[in-house]
Amino acid sequence: MKILLVGAHGTVGRGVAAELAQRHEIVDAGRRGASVTLDLADADSIRRALESVGPVDAIVSAAGQVGWAPLLELTPEQWAFSVANKLMGQVNLALVGQAYLRDGGSITLTSGVLVDQPVRYGAAASLANGAIEAFVRAAAIELPRGLRINAVSPGVLLESMSELGPFFRGFEPVPAARVALAYSRSVEGAETGRVYPVR
Amino acid sequence: MKILLVGAHGTVGRGVAAELAQRHEIVDAGRRGASVTLDLADADSIRRALESVGPVDAIVSAAGQVGWAPLLELTPEQWAFSVANKLMGQVNLALVGQAYLRDGGSITLTSGVLVDQPVRYGAAASLANGAIEAFVRAAAIELPRGLRINAVSPGVLLESMSELGPFFRGFEPVPAARVALAYSRSVEGAETGRVYPVR
Ligand SMILES: NC(=O)c1ccc[n+]([C@@H]2O[C@H](COP(=O)([O-])OP(=O)(O)OC[C@H]3O[C@@H](n4cnc5c(N)ncnc54)[C@H](OP(=O)(O)O)[C@@H]3O)[C@@H](O)[C@H]2O)c1
Ligand SMILES: NC(=O)c1ccc[n+]([C@@H]2O[C@H](COP(=O)([O-])OP(=O)(O)OC[C@H]3O[C@@H](n4cnc5c(N)ncnc54)[C@H](OP(=O)(O)O)[C@@H]3O)[C@@H](O)[C@H]2O)c1
Repeated sequence: MKILLVGAHGTVGRGVAAELAQRHEIVDAGRRGASVTLDLADADSIRRALESVGPVDAIVSAAGQVGWAPLLELTPEQWAFSVANKLMGQVNLALVGQAYLRDGGSITLTSGVLVDQPVRYGAAASLANGAIEAFVRAAAIELPRGLRINAVSPGVLLESMSELGPFFRGFEPVPAARVALAYSRSVEGAETGRVYPVR
Repeated sequence: MKILLVGAHGTVGRGVAAELAQRHEIVDAGRRGASVTLDLADADSIRRALESVGPVDAIVSAAGQVGWAPLLELTPEQWAFSVANKLMGQVNLALVGQAYLRDGGSITLTSGVLVDQPVRYGAAASLANGAIEAFVRAAAIELPRGLRINAVSPGVLLESMSELGPFFRGFEPVPAARVALAYSRSVEGAETGRVYPVR
């Protein structure tokens, strides 16, 4: 398969690339330093990227930033940033991207453990995750041509603990390689409208 | 209690008002024809409304519009409308409103059955519902002064079947009076971070 992987150089994305590149052609995409330049927050850039890459069998997002601050200190700008990036950025990747998928192709988005296990500072992340998971369930029943869509909902990554540890005390970290299996299952399996928690 | 009820004249809101007005003072709010004028999509209007109403014991939203169209026909404007109204409109009601709540007061938002039981045309509604439910779980752990926040997730209302029936074939409709009990439980109970499905 030919797979567009947004965020291929990130912590989650590197794990996903390592897993999928064993069997598939990976086209890495991101804002900087990737083979294909694409900003999730800019739907036109998504369209241009897919125009240049041509038909693909799978689109995977291992990206999506959010604002991170105490609930009552999150600014309107941080809320808008979160909505434009992790939330509508991934939705637009799906909506724009579906037209470039071969029949039976798949879309895999990323949510995360904060959807139902919140932490301080994480309200915008929780909100985006909840939106993505519900969107995936809804989009699955309307996508044409046998296209599929799922989400992976990782726990905090072992590889992120040096940075995120103080926010996730007591959470059991998950190695990127285990998280990557869920992306493989979404891309190489046959299910749709599913959320794969990896906790 | 003194309760600000946004959407008091809608299908859900009338049921909520009938239940809560038996024991409490209801201040009805909405864009048109309500005692207090407030547009969820305009955070300043929320602030002005709460400034004029003064301290309250509970804030309830029985409002929140979304775009409604086949997945691939939802326009960028409809997505933005859905995010500004049902999603960030209710989030802003909570974030602005908490400052006007008496200690121990509560916020109750509305999601809906489409969060996990999608229908054609409903992707933007599903997305907003998922965001609201995850937000409520996250906000609950950070709100100060014993403030609480919950969501009610109604099935399709019996009173809405003449309008919504064609989209919800096979769904078991729920009378507004039953849905209203969940709002009462959120306002008059002691839980926080909960989603009350009424199906
Ligand atoms: N790390 C964790 O523990 C963890 C746990 C649960 C969920 N998640 C979720 O997993 C996803 C990836 O997290 P991560 O920790 O791997 O992040 P990361 O290490 O910061 O990597 C993010 C990757 O995505 C790309 N990217 C970021 N914003 C983008 C945009 N607007 N458009 C296109 N590409 C973009 C980045 O490249 P450029 O900057 O060059 O664009 C980078 O390659 C996020 O949604 C995160 O919330 C992470
Ligand atoms: N009806 C159902 O079967 C059902 C099922 C599940 C969930 N829900 C959810 O329940 C909520 C209410 O639905 P409903 O059927 O009762 O709707 P509705 O009959 O259209 O009533 C909505 C009420 O909210 C007010 N409102 C709408 N937009 C507003 C805004 N931006 N700012 C302030 N007030 C606003 C309206 O008054 P103005 O127009 O004057 O502002 C009206 O009073 C929605 O979130 C809906 O998704 C409904």
